[in-house]
Amino acid sequence: MENLEEKRKSGAWLIGGLGGIAITVASGAFALGKGLIPPTGMVTETDNFRGLELLPADLLEFGGCDIRKGNALDIAQNILQESQNIGAACLPHITDRLKKYDSSIEQGLATNCGKTITSLSDTSNDTQVDLAVQVETIRQHLRSFKKENNLEEIVVVNLASTEPELPLREYHFDPAAFSTQITANNLDSVRASTIYTYAAILEGCPYINFTPSNGALIPALVKLAEETGVPVMGNDGKTGETLLKSILAPMFSSRNLEVLSWAGFNILGNMDGKVLDNPENKKSKLKSKDKLLSEILGYDPHSNVDINYVPSLSDQKIAWDFIHFQGFMGTKMSLQFTWQGYDSMLAAPIVLDLIRLALLAKKRGERGLMSHLGEFFKTPIEGKEYQHHRQHELLIHYAEQARKTIT
Amino acid sequence: MENLEEKRKSGAWLIGGLGGIAITVASGAFALGKGLIPPTGMVTETDNFRGLELLPADLLEFGGCDIRKGNALDIAQNILQESQNIGAACLPHITDRLKKYDSSIEQGLATNCGKTITSLSDTSNDTQVDLAVQVETIRQHLRSFKKENNLEEIVVVNLASTEPELPLREYHFDPAAFSTQITANNLDSVRASTIYTYAAILEGCPYINFTPSNGALIPALVKLAEETGVPVMGNDGKTGETLLKSILAPMFSSRNLEVLSWAGFNILGNMDGKVLDNPENKKSKLKSKDKLLSEILGYDPHSNVDINYVPSLSDQKIAWDFIHFQGFMGTKMSLQFTWQGYDSMLAAPIVLDLIRLALLAKKRGERGLMSHLGEFFKTPIEGKEYQHHRQHELLIHYAEQARKTIT
Amino acid sequence: MENLEEKRKSGAWLIGGLGGIAITVASGAFALGKGLIPPTGMVTETDNFRGLELLPADLLEFGGCDIRKGNALDIAQNILQESQNIGAACLPHITDRLKKYDSSIEQGLATNCGKTITSLSDTSNDTQVDLAVQVETIRQHLRSFKKENNLEEIVVVNLASTEPELPLREYHFDPAAFSTQITANNLDSVRASTIYTYAAILEGCPYINFTPSNGALIPALVKLAEETGVPVMGNDGKTGETLLKSILAPMFSSRNLEVLSWAGFNILGNMDGKVLDNPENKKSKLKSKDKLLSEILGYDPHSNVDINYVPSLSDQKIAWDFIHFQGFMGTKMSLQFTWQGYDSMLAAPIVLDLIRLALLAKKRGERGLMSHLGEFFKTPIEGKEYQHHRQHELLIHYAEQARKTIT
Amino acid sequence: MENLEEKRKSGAWLIGGLGGIAITVASGAFALGKGLIPPTGMVTETDNFRGLELLPADLLEFGGCDIRKGNALDIAQNILQESQNIGAACLPHITDRLKKYDSSIEQGLATNCGKTITSLSDTSNDTQVDLAVQVETIRQHLRSFKKENNLEEIVVVNLASTEPELPLREYHFDPAAFSTQITANNLDSVRASTIYTYAAILEGCPYINFTPSNGALIPALVKLAEETGVPVMGNDGKTGETLLKSILAPMFSSRNLEVLSWAGFNILGNMDGKVLDNPENKKSKLKSKDKLLSEILGYDPHSNVDINYVPSLSDQKIAWDFIHFQGFMGTKMSLQFTWQGYDSMLAAPIVLDLIRLALLAKKRGERGLMSHLGEFFKTPIEGKEYQHHRQHELLIHYAEQARKTIT
Repeated sequence: MENLEEKRKSGAWLIGGLGGIAITVASGAFALGKGLIPPTGMVTETDNFRGLELLPADLLEFGGCDIRKGNALDIAQNILQESQNIGAACLPHITDRLKKYDSSIEQGLATNCGKTITSLSDTSNDTQVDLAVQVETIRQHLRSFKKENNLEEIVVVNLASTEPELPLREYHFDPAAFSTQITANNLDSVRASTIYTYAAILEGCPYINFTPSNGALIPALVKLAEETGVPVMGNDGKTGETLLKSILAPMFSSRNLEVLSWAGFNILGNMDGKVLDNPENKKSKLKSKDKLLSEILGYDPHSNVDINYVPSLSDQKIAWDFIHFQGFMGTKMSLQFTWQGYDSMLAAPIVLDLIRLALLAKKRGERGLMSHLGEFFKTPIEGKEYQHHRQHELLIHYAEQARKTIT
Repeated sequence: MENLEEKRKSGAWLIGGLGGIAITVASGAFALGKGLIPPTGMVTETDNFRGLELLPADLLEFGGCDIRKGNALDIAQNILQESQNIGAACLPHITDRLKKYDSSIEQGLATNCGKTITSLSDTSNDTQVDLAVQVETIRQHLRSFKKENNLEEIVVVNLASTEPELPLREYHFDPAAFSTQITANNLDSVRASTIYTYAAILEGCPYINFTPSNGALIPALVKLAEETGVPVMGNDGKTGETLLKSILAPMFSSRNLEVLSWAGFNILGNMDGKVLDNPENKKSKLKSKDKLLSEILGYDPHSNVDINYVPSLSDQKIAWDFIHFQGFMGTKMSLQFTWQGYDSMLAAPIVLDLIRLALLAKKRGERGLMSHLGEFFKTPIEGKEYQHHRQHELLIHYAEQARKTIT
Repeated sequence: MENLEEKRKSGAWLIGGLGGIAITVASGAFALGKGLIPPTGMVTETDNFRGLELLPADLLEFGGCDIRKGNALDIAQNILQESQNIGAACLPHITDRLKKYDSSIEQGLATNCGKTITSLSDTSNDTQVDLAVQVETIRQHLRSFKKENNLEEIVVVNLASTEPELPLREYHFDPAAFSTQITANNLDSVRASTIYTYAAILEGCPYINFTPSNGALIPALVKLAEETGVPVMGNDGKTGETLLKSILAPMFSSRNLEVLSWAGFNILGNMDGKVLDNPENKKSKLKSKDKLLSEILGYDPHSNVDINYVPSLSDQKIAWDFIHFQGFMGTKMSLQFTWQGYDSMLAAPIVLDLIRLALLAKKRGERGLMSHLGEFFKTPIEGKEYQHHRQHELLIHYAEQARKTIT
Repeated sequence: MENLEEKRKSGAWLIGGLGGIAITVASGAFALGKGLIPPTGMVTETDNFRGLELLPADLLEFGGCDIRKGNALDIAQNILQESQNIGAACLPHITDRLKKYDSSIEQGLATNCGKTITSLSDTSNDTQVDLAVQVETIRQHLRSFKKENNLEEIVVVNLASTEPELPLREYHFDPAAFSTQITANNLDSVRASTIYTYAAILEGCPYINFTPSNGALIPALVKLAEETGVPVMGNDGKTGETLLKSILAPMFSSRNLEVLSWAGFNILGNMDGKVLDNPENKKSKLKSKDKLLSEILGYDPHSNVDINYVPSLSDQKIAWDFIHFQGFMGTKMSLQFTWQGYDSMLAAPIVLDLIRLALLAKKRGERGLMSHLGEFFKTPIEGKEYQHHRQHELLIHYAEQARKTIT
């Protein structure tokens, strides 16, 4: 164990560190390290990524922050039992690392995030602290995490709840202009996620926005990342209904079948569901879920997406989609599907993939948007490709190119 | 009209010419020719196929054969009304051509096709006629159809009911050895479909096996086609449940999710459903539907496929699939879908695609298997690619290459 | 035909007379009268109602009103073609009666019905006309319809779009107090439906509220009906998702299984769907759909109901419900269903049932609420019974009692 | 604990005692006795059964037999973990009673039960033992169980795998004639279940056939039970798809909607599923599942039921049913449902209900068929009522009558 700790030179710092996904990411990495679980669900563990010298899960150190207080061990117990898998049996073997992770969790921000998120917060109001101070505090957290664990580099991943949309102003498109807003303490210029991203980039940490919150990777910060040599990517992890959309919509195109309507209905029982019950936060999410249809089809069919909070489902996320389409001679036909997944279990392995690939990008000196990671996101920033299989081929092509550099 | 008739230099000869698919193929082509319907559902009408000088539907002459007697007009009326589309409204405008088509229908074969198919036949027993004579009769049919309509070339498409599997012997792998069986009148060496294919190839007609009947494109005949310069392809049109399998299975692979079980249940109400109610015929079909899963996934999950005849559905074909899969930490999750399509309406536009592409292949001097047409078949012969999007890319690549030759 | 016209002594006056349901009610009655269709879907045509001397459909005269202008024949053509049934074939045989019906349609009211409904109206603003005058106008319509057709009695049925909820004040509970509001021209005291009901009761016409609009049968008007000997009943026809709820919820009770959550999602494409897209109107509907669960189960599970407008569905109405329940040892299990119906085709035969049964009630001298008709409504007024099978037994019991009186 | 053991005067003897259902029945009763779980899923724990002095679960002693060897504790652990409920947490508290139960399990019979069941058996071939001796052995088992536990009465419940159908001869209709076959050692006259039932009745034990095996309650044995004052009932516990059929079919009747087709598809992963994969055994089951439709509807719609074994589902049982129906004007519509339950968790509480109600019947001196228990069975013997809600009302009525006798 000690040897391993010394060997750990890279870390992941998880925003929303006590949420279901973050706890599953950490628990999963610990369990993988001990050989307790197979890497099912991790894309980077398939043959296509052999020989890339990606960091084994065991060599990752974990830290993070959260606006809620809580005990990582209890949360892990709940989430793993609810998902009815072998995770619960792993717990005794990963308790030490979970405890260490728990003790690393810093107080998070809820700056300008609206009532629903603020109501979840166990901490006092951030709005009284100057934005510049908030940025500095997060930078300090990142530096401490790095220093205390002797890490050479850390990836920051946003796994917090969906924020209300941040209305973009002119100053959100230019690094210098944005910087001025922070100094001027203009609260309207940021959401909590903006502060985290800014801090991460200033600290040179690769950054992944796994949430739909548009405040995280505003154009000014993407530019800043490019200028300062930091790889970043988002938005919104593609794990369920949208994954299926990005798979099925190309089928209709390829067969010249016209999608008339695509109605989707999501029910979920976790904290994410609770936050999305608020119309403001839901709006961010729906926007993210809905864009790819017209991008893939080349026209705009009637589409609905709705999300409802159903507490009894716990970590389960169920989506029912009804696709009405027209074929030869105007014949109307339909496809409907019900997807029954566990939110954290679908997201966690992909987050581990993204951490490993962000570390690789950093090592390779890449900067700005990691556009080869589009397949992992509902709305890849500046994405030109929404068809899942093409996104996947782009990623595999990237892996092939990277492998050449190594050998 | 007269001018058009003179211009029609190519034809399609449909085996099972009075079945729902054939009637829809013909009616659809006639209605397209009159501009009564858009080409929705036809792959060759998308942008990817511009500039290939593919034959317009209007320039195709139609003929065929069937073991049942019936009136093409009545059948068209039924099938178009059942599918609840604009087809029924087209009927008055295409009556003349349907009548001409009807009068062209020759008596078909049910040679060694088992009880279920024989029971559908309105003709006397073929088994008393020597195989060599049967081959000659079909050749004669093809020659007459060509001559009477002044056609330069015709494509033969097998749209007949699914036959029981033909057990393959050594002589099925060699053209000369197979030819000997015909001369020796060895009934066990053929199904009806074998005779049609043999005759088509001997007449130099491109041949498409849209059914799962393995007797049609036995290895000996594929070789013969190659040797004599005839393009052929099969087996079994991919229109519904299997199309979805070839789309969804790659999703699980790409995300490293393990498919545990894939249970499928099909209900359909047309003649195809009636024939498949017989276990012998069903076996051929299920074999065809089930192969691609292990080919795509690289392992063999538990899988069931069942087909049941539900008369009230008429031309509707409904598939319910339940996919049980395992993700991170051994979490079991599921995807289920219900596909509600109209069999003939999904198949007909693809058959028109295949006819047009077979004519192109012939024009380009291609011979033997048209492997670029894999996306249209459940089990593409000698197919190495089962993932739908890759098959589609192969086809688009072919189109691009062909376009270069033209210009 | 002439003889039949003379024999027609009873009529039905349909509010929303150019809507899909009303047109189907009339067309259906005409087609039934001609023996063109079987009475499938009509409860009063089952054996339980033999010997009750219920009025044959052919002996009903139809009239009505609507806020939109339109041609009954065109609407019938559309709705019958969309539903893909034998209705379209009946049209030529019922054209005369449809034309007569069309010519009878009076201008309807949109008084205080909110923007969405007003926007549908092809007529000028009603708000400038005094309420008392509006009541008198409707009474006049009813009297004319009766007189012109030599009718002895007419049933009024509300088939108009769902209105926003009418907030109930004290004066809504007392006939005299309510009457004062009309005289005082207090616009807030009514919706359009209130005026129709008031007029119908004053004219002694049995009244059915097939919509969720609570303004129709306010307590004051139910009392007035009782006092003046008029049978009335509502609210909101139970045809699809709610019918299933009233069937399935008792199953869970009977087996002591605990319903944890019941999430429902409705998509529909007709005018009803368009109106319900407005949150105010939707609220009325959802309230109506959601009440019976806790009434049947005896506790209040988490429940969602949502309705979305999907134009391509036309008259189709699709509901997906997900029921999460708990069994032995706390085991969580689920039932999900997809109901695919045609709105007008499910409603119309029941409307005919209600007209016939209202005429019977009138003949039997019943007054006020017809509580034996509870099975036909989502929220039977003053209903104590929500379980469908018990409601059905109540109706059959009523029929048995009524039969005794006759013989 | 000791006091309780003395108080236990009644027992249940479970055939198939190491199967999932039996183990859940016993574990559930033990956990209920300790107050570890609520009685959710038990019908006899609803208000309707108050005051009937039904035996508390804690006062039941459990024993049984099985053809397989196995450890009750291990089986309990598996089944409770798979069902993902609070059962697993109960295990430590009920270990003692499970061990005692385990030690009571006698060797079971597979007499004339066909290959599939025989192959499951861990014991040598029973066919070499005379039938009369087999009967005596089972009687001996029952007597010992009674004596060793100081029980006054025991209920025998058949929870074994589905046997192939027993073809009924004349001698199966008369107790004396049947008795002669046993003496004559006519193997064709029995299945294993016949011997168990015969032995149970001869020992005066109330008997429940929870399986579809028709060999258990052949007419001769029902008569014998009546003559000798033993209450009996069967066949085939109604827990999932058929429960829904008995709930939904009456809905279509009540609305005069015509069911055209009812296609059902079941997938399950337990031993039951494995046995039903054999066509002979499946036939018994399907016959049992299919009868009630025509009984309820009064006509015979097209219907399919299929069952497939999908090992990854373990104790889960999933049914997809597609119901095609016709409404007004011949409009075709559909209802489809997916039922996702845990087989043992749905069955076990009902088995406890049946044991308690059989003991009550015995106490009340009832004899022969307990027809008031029809709601618990797919094909209640001599059942005239198949509608679930009416069956439920019969049971409640029975409970009310019984309550009067007690007070």
